[in-house]
Amino acid sequence: MRERIFIPFLVALFVFVSLNAETKDYTHYVDPFIGADGGGYVFPGVCMPYGMVKLGPDCNELTENAGWQSGTNVVGFSHTHLNGSGGGCKYGNVLFMASTGDIDLENYSSPYDQAEAQVGMFSIHLSKYDIYVRLSATEHAGFHEYTFPETQKANIFVDLGKFLASIEKQEFVGSEVRILSDTEIEGYTRVRNGWNFSKAYTVYFYAKFDTHAESLGTWKNGKAQAGVRSQSDENTKCGAWFTFNTMEKKTVKVKVGISYMGCNKARENLAEIASWDIEEPHQRSVTAWNEILSQIDVETSAEESKKIFYSSVYRIFMQPVDYSGENPMWSSDEPYYGDYHAIWDTFRATHPFINLFRPTRGGEMVQSLVNIYEHDKFMPDARSSHWSGRTQAGSNCDMLVADAYVKGIKDVDWEQALKAMIKNATVPPGDDERQYGRGGLWDYNRIGYVSTSFERGCSRTFEYSANDYAIATLAKGLGKTEIYQEFIKKASSWENLWNPNIESFGFKGFAWPRNNDGTWLDDPDFTVFSSGSFEHQFYETFSWELSFYVPHDIKRLITKMGGKEQFTKRLDSYFTITFPGKRDELLFYTKMVGLCQISNEPCFLTPSLYAYVGEPYKTARIVRQILATQYSSASDGVPGNDDSGSMGAWYAFHSLGFYPNAGQDVYLISSPVFKRATLTFENGKQMIITSINSSDKNIYIQSCKLNGKQLDRCWLRHSEIVNGGTLEFIMGPEPSTWAINGELPPSMSDSDPF
Amino acid sequence: MRERIFIPFLVALFVFVSLNAETKDYTHYVDPFIGADGGGYVFPGVCMPYGMVKLGPDCNELTENAGWQSGTNVVGFSHTHLNGSGGGCKYGNVLFMASTGDIDLENYSSPYDQAEAQVGMFSIHLSKYDIYVRLSATEHAGFHEYTFPETQKANIFVDLGKFLASIEKQEFVGSEVRILSDTEIEGYTRVRNGWNFSKAYTVYFYAKFDTHAESLGTWKNGKAQAGVRSQSDENTKCGAWFTFNTMEKKTVKVKVGISYMGCNKARENLAEIASWDIEEPHQRSVTAWNEILSQIDVETSAEESKKIFYSSVYRIFMQPVDYSGENPMWSSDEPYYGDYHAIWDTFRATHPFINLFRPTRGGEMVQSLVNIYEHDKFMPDARSSHWSGRTQAGSNCDMLVADAYVKGIKDVDWEQALKAMIKNATVPPGDDERQYGRGGLWDYNRIGYVSTSFERGCSRTFEYSANDYAIATLAKGLGKTEIYQEFIKKASSWENLWNPNIESFGFKGFAWPRNNDGTWLDDPDFTVFSSGSFEHQFYETFSWELSFYVPHDIKRLITKMGGKEQFTKRLDSYFTITFPGKRDELLFYTKMVGLCQISNEPCFLTPSLYAYVGEPYKTARIVRQILATQYSSASDGVPGNDDSGSMGAWYAFHSLGFYPNAGQDVYLISSPVFKRATLTFENGKQMIITSINSSDKNIYIQSCKLNGKQLDRCWLRHSEIVNGGTLEFIMGPEPSTWAINGELPPSMSDSDPF
Repeated sequence: MRERIFIPFLVALFVFVSLNAETKDYTHYVDPFIGADGGGYVFPGVCMPYGMVKLGPDCNELTENAGWQSGTNVVGFSHTHLNGSGGGCKYGNVLFMASTGDIDLENYSSPYDQAEAQVGMFSIHLSKYDIYVRLSATEHAGFHEYTFPETQKANIFVDLGKFLASIEKQEFVGSEVRILSDTEIEGYTRVRNGWNFSKAYTVYFYAKFDTHAESLGTWKNGKAQAGVRSQSDENTKCGAWFTFNTMEKKTVKVKVGISYMGCNKARENLAEIASWDIEEPHQRSVTAWNEILSQIDVETSAEESKKIFYSSVYRIFMQPVDYSGENPMWSSDEPYYGDYHAIWDTFRATHPFINLFRPTRGGEMVQSLVNIYEHDKFMPDARSSHWSGRTQAGSNCDMLVADAYVKGIKDVDWEQALKAMIKNATVPPGDDERQYGRGGLWDYNRIGYVSTSFERGCSRTFEYSANDYAIATLAKGLGKTEIYQEFIKKASSWENLWNPNIESFGFKGFAWPRNNDGTWLDDPDFTVFSSGSFEHQFYETFSWELSFYVPHDIKRLITKMGGKEQFTKRLDSYFTITFPGKRDELLFYTKMVGLCQISNEPCFLTPSLYAYVGEPYKTARIVRQILATQYSSASDGVPGNDDSGSMGAWYAFHSLGFYPNAGQDVYLISSPVFKRATLTFENGKQMIITSINSSDKNIYIQSCKLNGKQLDRCWLRHSEIVNGGTLEFIMGPEPSTWAINGELPPSMSDSDPF
Repeated sequence: MRERIFIPFLVALFVFVSLNAETKDYTHYVDPFIGADGGGYVFPGVCMPYGMVKLGPDCNELTENAGWQSGTNVVGFSHTHLNGSGGGCKYGNVLFMASTGDIDLENYSSPYDQAEAQVGMFSIHLSKYDIYVRLSATEHAGFHEYTFPETQKANIFVDLGKFLASIEKQEFVGSEVRILSDTEIEGYTRVRNGWNFSKAYTVYFYAKFDTHAESLGTWKNGKAQAGVRSQSDENTKCGAWFTFNTMEKKTVKVKVGISYMGCNKARENLAEIASWDIEEPHQRSVTAWNEILSQIDVETSAEESKKIFYSSVYRIFMQPVDYSGENPMWSSDEPYYGDYHAIWDTFRATHPFINLFRPTRGGEMVQSLVNIYEHDKFMPDARSSHWSGRTQAGSNCDMLVADAYVKGIKDVDWEQALKAMIKNATVPPGDDERQYGRGGLWDYNRIGYVSTSFERGCSRTFEYSANDYAIATLAKGLGKTEIYQEFIKKASSWENLWNPNIESFGFKGFAWPRNNDGTWLDDPDFTVFSSGSFEHQFYETFSWELSFYVPHDIKRLITKMGGKEQFTKRLDSYFTITFPGKRDELLFYTKMVGLCQISNEPCFLTPSLYAYVGEPYKTARIVRQILATQYSSASDGVPGNDDSGSMGAWYAFHSLGFYPNAGQDVYLISSPVFKRATLTFENGKQMIITSINSSDKNIYIQSCKLNGKQLDRCWLRHSEIVNGGTLEFIMGPEPSTWAINGELPPSMSDSDPF
C-alpha cells in the first residue's frame, strides 16, 4: 500500500492558489443548462469538482439520464447523477420532494417554472404547490431550501423507491428508513443494474431539518402509515414524510448527508455544511470551481464563446468522482475514483485536459485505476456504483495510463499499471465480454484481429492496436524491452483488418470485418457506412470513420491509404461527403459535418490529422466550422451526449488552439479562438497564448512564436506548454504557408517501420 | 417471475408432520462436536435447519474454518459460519464476547472448559473470567446468556472488526456502530474475499439486552471512547461495550437479530425470539430438527452408529442456507438459497439426500440456482456472502438440476434451468475461470477436451462429460431432441483424455493430460498418482482415481478398461494398493483405504461401482470397512472436511444401505447397517427397511425383497423408495450370489453406444 503524499500537493496547491488569487468570478460564465436539453444529458444541478453528491431535479417519469427533462414535471430532487451519459440511466437516488396538503404517494410531481442553474445553486418553482426550491451541495452533502405558501400542511418527503430508469434500466432492490426525531431521518435505498449492468449498490443518507415537524410518517409499498417511524427492508420501497406548519415561518431547510458506507458516515458527511445558510455551500462551490476555472483566463469580445468555454471546462471536472473515503468494496489508503463513464469517451480529451491542468488529480485517477485492478480483477472502461462495466470497444484505460505517463505525472505505481495493462491484453474477460478487459481477445492474440465470430471486431481491433501502443509506450519508459517489442508489433494489428479491395468514392482500402478463417466479410448489405452498437462490427462508427483511427501511426496509415495526396483527399472528402448510409444507424445524423459526426467520440481526433500531412489550415477550417456550427450557449448547445465532459473537453482544447493525441506527448495545433488565454498550471508556471486578429473570419494561423521564437511545426510537446512561456499566433482570413513544411508529428513507424 | 406456491407445501408439511407426530426426541443422538476436530471443520454451534444464523464460538486467532478450535482460547461468539468448509475461511461476523474488569480491546480471549454442544444449545465456561455462556438461535437471530461472577464490571461487547481469516483470507472493509439506549445497539460489519474471492458483503445486526447497562462506550481502530455512542465507517474497525453490575442479578441476556439487508431488518429478525427464556429458541430448534430427523427412525443396538447417523443427517440440513427475504442483491419472489459450499462436494450425496427426504426444499434450491443464473450471469458451483465462486472443476450445478429432475421434483422452471446449463456449456466464464461456469471451455468445445493449456484439464474434462450427460438428461425430458443429441455426444468427451498407453500395476489405459495439439503430456515426473489443487491437471484427485469417474457410462468405461474382469480387478486393486505417489499432494493421506481417500469427494461413488459388474458384495465389504474405520462418534470422527455435510451424507446413505448415482434415477445398494429403518417421505409414504442379522460381521446381503417380492438386482429406482413399501434384507457373514446375475444399473451406452 502506498502512502498518499499530501504535503507536496498542498504546497503546490498553496503556491498555485496564491498565484491565482484573483477576485474575478469565472463561475458567472458557467451555465449548467448548456447541453441539458437536445440529447446532451448535461446535469444541470449542483455539484463540487469531482463531487460525489450531484443534487438536482429528476423529471417526468425519471427517464432522462441526468434526471432533467425540460418542460415536463419535476418529480423531486435526488442526490446522485451522472453528467452527460447516454445509454441506460444510472443513479437518481435518495429523492426529496415537497408538496402541500394531504400526502399523495402516487402522483406528487409538479410542473415547474423559474428554473435557474448556476455553479453551486439550483433554483426552481414548483407551480402545482407554489413552492420555491433552492439547492446547493458540498462534496458529500446536499442542502435543500423549500419556501412554502402559508399552509398548515407543508410536506417534505423522501422517496427511497425512486431512481432513474429507462432502457437497460436500473432495478429496485430494497430500502429502509428510520425517523430519529421530528427533525432527523436516516435510511438507505438499494438499486442494481443500469447501463453498466452493476450488482446492487446502496446509497445511505442522514437528513436534518431546521424546523420541527408537526406530524410525520412513513410508507412501505405505497401504503402510508402516519406516526410510524421505521420501515424495514423486505426488498420493499419505502419513504417518509415530515409535515410542517408554514403559516408563520415559510422556509424549511434540510441538509442531507450521503454515503456509500453507512448511515453514520452519511451523518458525518452532513457535517460538511455547518450552518443553515445556503450561501455557505453555494460560496464553497463557487470558490472550489473558481480554483479550477481561474487556471484559464481568457480574453475575448465574444461573450458567448466565453460562456461555452467555461461551461465546457466546468463539465470536464464534474467526473470522475473522488470517492476516497467512500469505498464500500475494500479498504485502501490509495485514492479511489469512480463514475468513469466511460473512458472510451473521456480518454481522448477529458483526461488529457485534467492531466494538463490538474496532474495531481490525474495521477490519483490513474492510481485509482491500478487500485481497482488490484482489488477488482481489471481496470475499468466504465465504472459507476462501485462496479466496473461496460467496455465499449478497446481497453482504453490503457490510454489513460500512457497519457499520464508521457506527461510526467507522479505518484502512480507504474509497474503495477503495466501489469494491469498486460492483463487487459492477455486474459479474456469472459461471459459477455462487456464488463472489462478485451472481448474477442482469443482471436486477437491468435490470428491478429478480432474476427466476425465476436461482436465489434473492427472497432476492437483498431482500438486494441492503439491500446497496444500505449502498453509499448509505458514498457519502453520502464525499460522493459521484451514487453515493448511484443506490443509495438501488436500495435500494427489494425493492418490485419485493412481490406485493400474495398473502394468508396474513389478511395481504396478500408477497415473491414474479417472471418476467423482469414476471408473477408462478404455481405452485399454491409457497406463502408454500416454502423451499429454493441452487436455490430463497427461500434458507434463506420468504416469510413474508423479507417482514420490509427492515432499512433498516422504515417503508416498514410502509406496504406496510398500516400500523402490520397490521404489528404480522403480527409477532405470525409468532411464534405453527405452520409449515404442508413441514417438511423447513426446516433446524431443531423449533427454531421460531412461524414464527421462530432456528436460522437470516434472522430474526435480526425479533424487534427491534417497536421500529419502538413496542412494545418485545413484542421483550422474544420475545427472552427464545428465549433461555430455544432456548439452554442443554448440548452441544446452540446452536439451529442456530453459523455462526462467529452464534448466539453473537445471544445475547450480546440478553442485554446490545440488538441491532444491521447497517450502521446503530442498536442496538434488547430486555431486559437481567444485574443488572449493565460493558462496557469499546478507547477505555478503560466503559458500565455495570444492570437492577434483572431475572429470568426480570421481563423487561419499566419505565424506562430513559441517563447519568442518562430515555431514552424503545427504541434507541441507537453513540456512546451506546461512549463509556461508564451505562444503568439497571428491570425488571418486566408490559409497561409505556416508549418506546411515543418517537422511532422511523430508516428510509430518513424522509429519502428513495418 | 414465478409465484412461490406456499399452500400445497404447507398442506404437505401438515400431513407429513401429523404422520410423524412422535414424542421421540432424535436430537439427543446428535452430537455437533463430531467432526469439529481433526480437520472435519464441523460447526459445533447452534443453528436451525437451513438457518442463516449459525451462532458459535470462534477460537484462537480466528483461523479455523468453522471458528472452533479445541484446546485454544475462545475469542467470542459470532453469528455467521459455514459447516465443514476447507480452504480459506468465510464469515465469523458480528462477534459478541463477555469479560470482567476493565475493557481490554487487545487481549480479551479466554481459555475455556465445560464446552457442551447439543441441538439448539451451546454452552461453555470462560475460565479467565469465570463466565458461563449459553447460546441458542432461530433462523435469523441469536440468543446469548452470560452468567457472570459477582462484579461491578461485567462487560458484554460486540467487536465488528473480527471475522474468520486464514489462508485465502477474508479482508476487513468497514464497520459502523450505534448505541440506541442502555439496552440497544445496532450496526454492521463489512468484509470481503475468503475462499470464494467475494466482493464485500455487509452483515447488519440489532441487539437488545435484558438488563440496563451501568456504563457503555464504543471504540474505533482500537481506541476506546467511554460514553461515545456512535462510530462511523472510514473503512475502520469499531465495536461497543455494555458494562453491567452483576453483584445481585448475575445473568445478562442479549438477543441479536442479524440481516444482510439493513439494521431495521435485523431488528425485525430479532422478533423471532419473543421471550427472554433461552428455552424458547432451544425448543424451537429441537422441534425443527426433529421434524427432519424423525423422517428416519432407525433401530439398532449399536448406539454409536445411531449417534453418528443422526449427527450426519443433522449436518446435511445445515446448508445450503435459506436466505429468502435476505437477498441484498436483487428483488425476487423466488426462493433464494446461499452457502452452497461447494456443489462440487454436495451434488454427490448431500443434495440427493435432500431431494429424497425434502423434495420441496430440494426444488427450491434448484429454482434458487436458476434465479441466481437469471440475475447473476451463471449458476454457481460455490456461493457464499451472496457471491458466486469458486468452481472446483465441472459445472456440477448441472448435476443438481438433473438430480432434481429425474426425481420428479416440482416447481422448478426447467426451461430456464436448461438455459442455465447450456450457458455453462457454451459461454467461457473468463478471467481466472474459477468463478463459475466452465474453465477451458474454448478447448473443450473445439478439440473435445481441456488441454494442458488450462488448469485442471483432466478433472474438468471428466466432470464436464458427466455434466453434459446431465444436460442431455434434462433436454431429453423436455423433448429437446437436438440439444439432447448434441450433449449426449459431448458426454463421451472423457474418452479424448483416455490414454491407452499409460500402464500402472498391470492395468492399461488411464486419464491423462493432453496438449492442445493432440499429443499426450510427456513428463517423467508426472505419474498416475500425481495430484494437486487448482493449478494441477488433477484437482484433488489423481489419474488412478479419476479414471473411474464416468458415472453416466460405466458400461463404456468397463470396455475402455479391457472388459468386466479387468475392470473388477482394477477396482479390487484400487481398494488395496498402497498409495505410492507423493503423499503430501493428497489432502488426507492417512485416511486412505487402498487408493481411496474417502476423506475427499472424487472417490465417493467408486465403492458402489461393483454394482455395474454384478459384484455387490465387494461394495458391501468396502463400504462397511470405510464406515467402520473412517467414521466415529469422536470429535475427529469425520474422515475429511465435512464439506457442508458431504461426509455426513455419504455415511447416512450407506448406513441405510444404498447410495445415489447423482443426476440419475439410480440408487446402488451397499449394505444396510440398521436392524430396521423407517423412512417417512414428504408425500406421506413410508419405506421400511429391515436387515435381518445385520451386524459388524454380517455385512453381506444374502437376499432382498422389495415389497415382498425377491429383488434380484443391486440397485433401485427413486420411485421404488419414495413411494413407500418394504425392503427386506437378510444379511450374512459371507458373500452370497445375490444379484450377481441380475439386471445391471443403466449406463449411457445402453441406449447410445459410441
